[in-house]
Amino acid sequence: MKKIVIVGGCAAGPKTAAKAKRVNPENKIELYTMENMVSYSACGMPYYIKGAVPSYQNLIVRTPEDFKKQGIDVFLNHKCTQILPDEKVVVFNTINNGIGETKRVEYDELVLCVGSRPYIPKIKNINLENIFQLKVLEDGIKIREKMENSKSVIILGGGYIAIEILEAFVKNGLKVTVVERNKDIMSQFDPEISTMIKDYITQRDGNLVDFVMNDEIIEFIGTKEFEGAVTGTGKVLHADFCVIAAGVIPNTELAKEAGVEIGITGAIKTDNRMRTNIEHIWAAGDCTEENCLITKKPMFAALGTIANKQGRVVGINLNTDTTGVYEAFDGILGSAVTSYFDFSMSTTGLTETKAKLYAKHTNIEPIAATITKRDKPGYMPDSNSITVKLVADKRTGELLGAQAVGVGDADKRIYTVTSALRANLTVQEFLHLDLTYSPAFSSTIDPLLTAAYKLKEEIDR
Amino acid sequence: MKKIVIVGGCAAGPKTAAKAKRVNPENKIELYTMENMVSYSACGMPYYIKGAVPSYQNLIVRTPEDFKKQGIDVFLNHKCTQILPDEKVVVFNTINNGIGETKRVEYDELVLCVGSRPYIPKIKNINLENIFQLKVLEDGIKIREKMENSKSVIILGGGYIAIEILEAFVKNGLKVTVVERNKDIMSQFDPEISTMIKDYITQRDGNLVDFVMNDEIIEFIGTKEFEGAVTGTGKVLHADFCVIAAGVIPNTELAKEAGVEIGITGAIKTDNRMRTNIEHIWAAGDCTEENCLITKKPMFAALGTIANKQGRVVGINLNTDTTGVYEAFDGILGSAVTSYFDFSMSTTGLTETKAKLYAKHTNIEPIAATITKRDKPGYMPDSNSITVKLVADKRTGELLGAQAVGVGDADKRIYTVTSALRANLTVQEFLHLDLTYSPAFSSTIDPLLTAAYKLKEEIDR
Repeated sequence: MKKIVIVGGCAAGPKTAAKAKRVNPENKIELYTMENMVSYSACGMPYYIKGAVPSYQNLIVRTPEDFKKQGIDVFLNHKCTQILPDEKVVVFNTINNGIGETKRVEYDELVLCVGSRPYIPKIKNINLENIFQLKVLEDGIKIREKMENSKSVIILGGGYIAIEILEAFVKNGLKVTVVERNKDIMSQFDPEISTMIKDYITQRDGNLVDFVMNDEIIEFIGTKEFEGAVTGTGKVLHADFCVIAAGVIPNTELAKEAGVEIGITGAIKTDNRMRTNIEHIWAAGDCTEENCLITKKPMFAALGTIANKQGRVVGINLNTDTTGVYEAFDGILGSAVTSYFDFSMSTTGLTETKAKLYAKHTNIEPIAATITKRDKPGYMPDSNSITVKLVADKRTGELLGAQAVGVGDADKRIYTVTSALRANLTVQEFLHLDLTYSPAFSSTIDPLLTAAYKLKEEIDR
Repeated sequence: MKKIVIVGGCAAGPKTAAKAKRVNPENKIELYTMENMVSYSACGMPYYIKGAVPSYQNLIVRTPEDFKKQGIDVFLNHKCTQILPDEKVVVFNTINNGIGETKRVEYDELVLCVGSRPYIPKIKNINLENIFQLKVLEDGIKIREKMENSKSVIILGGGYIAIEILEAFVKNGLKVTVVERNKDIMSQFDPEISTMIKDYITQRDGNLVDFVMNDEIIEFIGTKEFEGAVTGTGKVLHADFCVIAAGVIPNTELAKEAGVEIGITGAIKTDNRMRTNIEHIWAAGDCTEENCLITKKPMFAALGTIANKQGRVVGINLNTDTTGVYEAFDGILGSAVTSYFDFSMSTTGLTETKAKLYAKHTNIEPIAATITKRDKPGYMPDSNSITVKLVADKRTGELLGAQAVGVGDADKRIYTVTSALRANLTVQEFLHLDLTYSPAFSSTIDPLLTAAYKLKEEIDR
């Protein structure tokens, strides 16, 4: 019997707890979270704000009682303040009933699932009321409440979360100004693909959505409450509230203080069994960095699906001493997807931009091809256009990445490429894939394959 | 300059012509078809019958004039009657203006894209009026016309085409009796999956659809027109018309007479460049057999997507003498998909049933796992249930096949597995796939991965 202490209660933490218990029911497992709820879908919050999910309670996967039934003890409102590896103790500040109290908890194994937090740029008057971030469930609840009594909003940032809450706000009729520092929104995609995304939004909702590009907020206006913002180029924007969605940074401070090694991405470094450099301390989820399966270099991706997979791996590996079984988490491809109403945008592996950056340090020769095509035969009433971009290494023909966007079914097509990338398929192998076909689902030659044909021609040129 | 004669005008033929011309515009290309139109989507016919596609003309991809512009001569109403390899001549019976005439056409290279035809069981009174098959576009036009003036129909068969026209008839309010010789409809799936498909149809449309299983039609009733049918077990069924959709058989008679080798599946045998055993005669599309990438044995699959891919390959290889380039068509996985209204059904590789048959001749140890799960988080309003079954070889852990069915997004998930099968991924590799994730598109751990986890546990047991 060993005592496993898990810090963090959103995704990786609960998954670790459940798996570790399932593998060996003898384990004593305690899960601590600073929040007042546990195990919920953070990714679902934009859909709660939008109104597609009626209650925030729908987002809760399991309650402390559910964990109790499984033999896992959950401690809410416990903020971790210190890790003492030499004593194998972790210190919490309990914030129950408004009274702070210090609590020392001993562990045999400690799992850090301490997550990430929104990156907050340095902006004057950042502490005004009605400036929100979207990280924990409480944030989501507050933003929805505020939205329901508002007519306009500023979103700082233009990435995945920004696009999802943009949809939520537009759906609810708000005037939205998106302020993006870069020249493109969704800069995880290649520039011309990002442009397609922005064009779609403008075309669909230009009356409600205004983009301020290549610019940043340098000051918020207001005395107590937020009233607007001033940008670096001198624009003055007014709105009822503001949401900061400018990316996330990993929570690593406590780990670092305790001597846990931080990787070059700024997130906690682990080996492929999810062990940190300190014995008996593991890490999983948003606070860790991952190995990119293409470049073999560290990358940081804060995504629920990765957190869950890593939690599962830690849960297995915490029991290696008794089971003899371990599992490796080899890495990720940077796969991601979101949508703006009917327009989906999905990517995996390297974009052309990233491949070209990568090529500076290696001898790959990035080459890309883009096609736009109906996702089903044109005669089908629900056929729609999608754009597929494939990137490969001209020398070897190996695929490096893919992007797909459009009103058509772009998302699951990228699934296919994740599988191909995992297996280092070449474009020549990929273009022969025996994809299923029926007019109800795809064109005779799927857009994925059409893109591969084109890319093959580019490679052979 | 060489003269390429292509026989067959649906999918493989037009694709061969277009590609061969594109690769080398010097080629003189003639395409002959016995039909009065060319280059249309045969797979779209059920959707035309249903009414989702308003006009049959929507199904036409390219007209003879379109081909002309590309420098390809199309000859309609030319029925091939003989192939004379020694003289490098192919003989047609022209049926223009109702007057049959014999025409000898010389070729440098001959491509047989002569397709398949519905299998017609031996049934008494098979020649009554209002007994249809669905092969060429004219069939589709006749069936839709008849359907519009009818209240009931018998479908003989329970495979892909049967399910698609069943949907069309139900959508149009007809009473439908499906007569299936086997104990399951859609027997391309494992029995328990077939049962789920049948249960869905019965649950949704039990008032309109009646299944007569384990039974076959032995006699049609009527004097001039079809009035009904008698089954082997003595059931007497009445309906306004009947459609025979009991599978297809390849058109090989002329090829066989000319000495072209027929494979063990009964279809034309080619090498992986799509050459038959006779020099200067090639074959592509429904009339050929394919190599199964899993079993490495011949299989027969008459699908538009394969026909198109093979046409492309022949088009490239017809020019190898001038370009030095050739391409291999290595084989297929038996991937297929269709749907019954919102319920989709998709498969690739071996089912458990087929894997067990295959295991009798090899040393594989088939093992399978099935899961049913929401395709998106339960809190998303459009989440639906899908069932995923994965089959693997217990010895090596390599995936052998997958089936997915349900109202949820089953189809494109099978795409992912085709890619994995192509690359011989193991279950252990597959379960780590970095699939894209957003609540709008999938659950945090995709059903595919949940099935893989379960299968991994079965393998490790």
